[in-house]
Amino acid sequence: MQPARFDLLGIGNAIVDVVAPVEHAFLSRHDMTPGGMSLIDTERAEALYAAMPPGQESSGGSVANSCAVAAMLGARVAYLGKVADDELGAVFRHDIAATGVHFPTAPLVGGAPTARCLIVVTPDGQRTMHTYLGAAVSFGEADLDPALIGESAVTYLEGYLFDPPSAQFAFRRAAEIAHAAGRQVALSLSDAFCVHRHRAAFREMVREQVDILFANEAEICSLYEVNSFGEAADAVHSEVTLAALTRSEMGSVILRGGERVAVAAEPTTVVDTTGAGDAFAAGFLAAYARGETLGACGRLGSRAAAAVIAQYGARPLGDLRTMLED
Amino acid sequence: MQPARFDLLGIGNAIVDVVAPVEHAFLSRHDMTPGGMSLIDTERAEALYAAMPPGQESSGGSVANSCAVAAMLGARVAYLGKVADDELGAVFRHDIAATGVHFPTAPLVGGAPTARCLIVVTPDGQRTMHTYLGAAVSFGEADLDPALIGESAVTYLEGYLFDPPSAQFAFRRAAEIAHAAGRQVALSLSDAFCVHRHRAAFREMVREQVDILFANEAEICSLYEVNSFGEAADAVHSEVTLAALTRSEMGSVILRGGERVAVAAEPTTVVDTTGAGDAFAAGFLAAYARGETLGACGRLGSRAAAAVIAQYGARPLGDLRTMLED
Repeated sequence: MQPARFDLLGIGNAIVDVVAPVEHAFLSRHDMTPGGMSLIDTERAEALYAAMPPGQESSGGSVANSCAVAAMLGARVAYLGKVADDELGAVFRHDIAATGVHFPTAPLVGGAPTARCLIVVTPDGQRTMHTYLGAAVSFGEADLDPALIGESAVTYLEGYLFDPPSAQFAFRRAAEIAHAAGRQVALSLSDAFCVHRHRAAFREMVREQVDILFANEAEICSLYEVNSFGEAADAVHSEVTLAALTRSEMGSVILRGGERVAVAAEPTTVVDTTGAGDAFAAGFLAAYARGETLGACGRLGSRAAAAVIAQYGARPLGDLRTMLED
Repeated sequence: MQPARFDLLGIGNAIVDVVAPVEHAFLSRHDMTPGGMSLIDTERAEALYAAMPPGQESSGGSVANSCAVAAMLGARVAYLGKVADDELGAVFRHDIAATGVHFPTAPLVGGAPTARCLIVVTPDGQRTMHTYLGAAVSFGEADLDPALIGESAVTYLEGYLFDPPSAQFAFRRAAEIAHAAGRQVALSLSDAFCVHRHRAAFREMVREQVDILFANEAEICSLYEVNSFGEAADAVHSEVTLAALTRSEMGSVILRGGERVAVAAEPTTVVDTTGAGDAFAAGFLAAYARGETLGACGRLGSRAAAAVIAQYGARPLGDLRTMLED
């Protein structure tokens, strides 16, 4: 096998975030599920945006965030995802390229606009997301680059890709190509509601195609339909080679074969939890690419997550490596 | 005279900001004048954006920022400025409307895109701006609403409007309409380089059409081509009814007839000085609309500026009135 050209290839929904702070009452007034991610159509997106206070726009998308952060931490990273040929698509492309991520996917011309995620953040830092998928829906098998997948040590997929049907197909195909090339496949479960929507497909994929699994407590409990973290951890341990399970301020638990490592959360000021899980996966995978111990992988994940939680937006503004210096 | 329907009507270049942190070396590498605002064409905008690190987008424009902040502080505010019928135009319109500002200007269809300002912020918090005016260039007399000007207690103009030729014409016309209706005209000098580009026109306008002038130390010294703040203050005192001169961390000096009030700067953490002068004018004019003393006007200006300086972006993210509670 050739040495990998990229440490990490991410495949995900390419999204621009619109973030605005709100009071808790805003959530109940607009029938929102606190902390969740809901898919919305054009009409609901327009109505919700009209109701939101002034915001800030920045590039998002779960795996795209992880790719940007991993690149900031020195990993060699590529990304596949679909934007439109419009202004927000240009913003997405600029931002991911400016972190040094190779992003070869052609934009969608003449179709739906670039996907956007309307994110409202309550004073406790919790984010509630509503996603209009737009151009991301058209990501399909034709956007996969088998040579690129074969050149990447880890192909990292987000659970959100189960939502757009053609992306779901491409998603499974990408995992097959990676394994055929002797590479690894990582998956983030993304969101407990997303797991609920596609539980059977997730269960099958986790069992048969995933080498490294990222999930938070709600997601892993939803996957196995159990009520305790312990039961969920036992279940995943028997199915996946490597699992990194995050528990917010309770830190994370990493499981691999006979190893079970608990990593403490990094103390931080909670401003906006958007992107915390994405940054954890980025730190973990950046350290994993350097062959570090599971504990070191978890610690870099925790530190990257802490940096992102202390600011508005899912990707660190500024030099992350300087921020993480002691 | 009828009571005013609006406390403040702003007229300015409608711009979306793209903000990114950089090191000082970035400025010298790209021949930038630290702290200045330069006008750039499409080609330079594309080259500069390509060189910039990942950023955040948010609504900007000097007087538009002041209008948004004044509305957050409870003033009744309207705004006139030209965006295009595109995605960034929709962001600008959403954000200013969401603060409660009346924004009736029709978008430009089929022409240049919405204006954008590429802002790089060095670790000392200083912002250096490069503006592509796009659709803002097409703001003209047809966009003025004489009835709206007549219903507004203060029409507030930004010096940057001297740059687009048709806006410059509209700008003078707006001042005439306001005075014919018995209302007041306020002007911000905007930028020392802008003053240098249009000094004679500024001098004439300040003398003949301005009731309330906002300027920082560099701008007022450039206007009168003097080297000391004291000389500049004496010169402006003899020409304008009310002048509010800001001096960064040295606070501000307010001059009106026999009154000369010095106001201290509000202590704050300097993250990004973008919009500091705009927020000062907003706080000043919001208090002025309530008939407060010059000292109280200056203090609300300083407090609004301090809130904006402590974050990335020119407009406060969140509830400004809550932020300013003691």
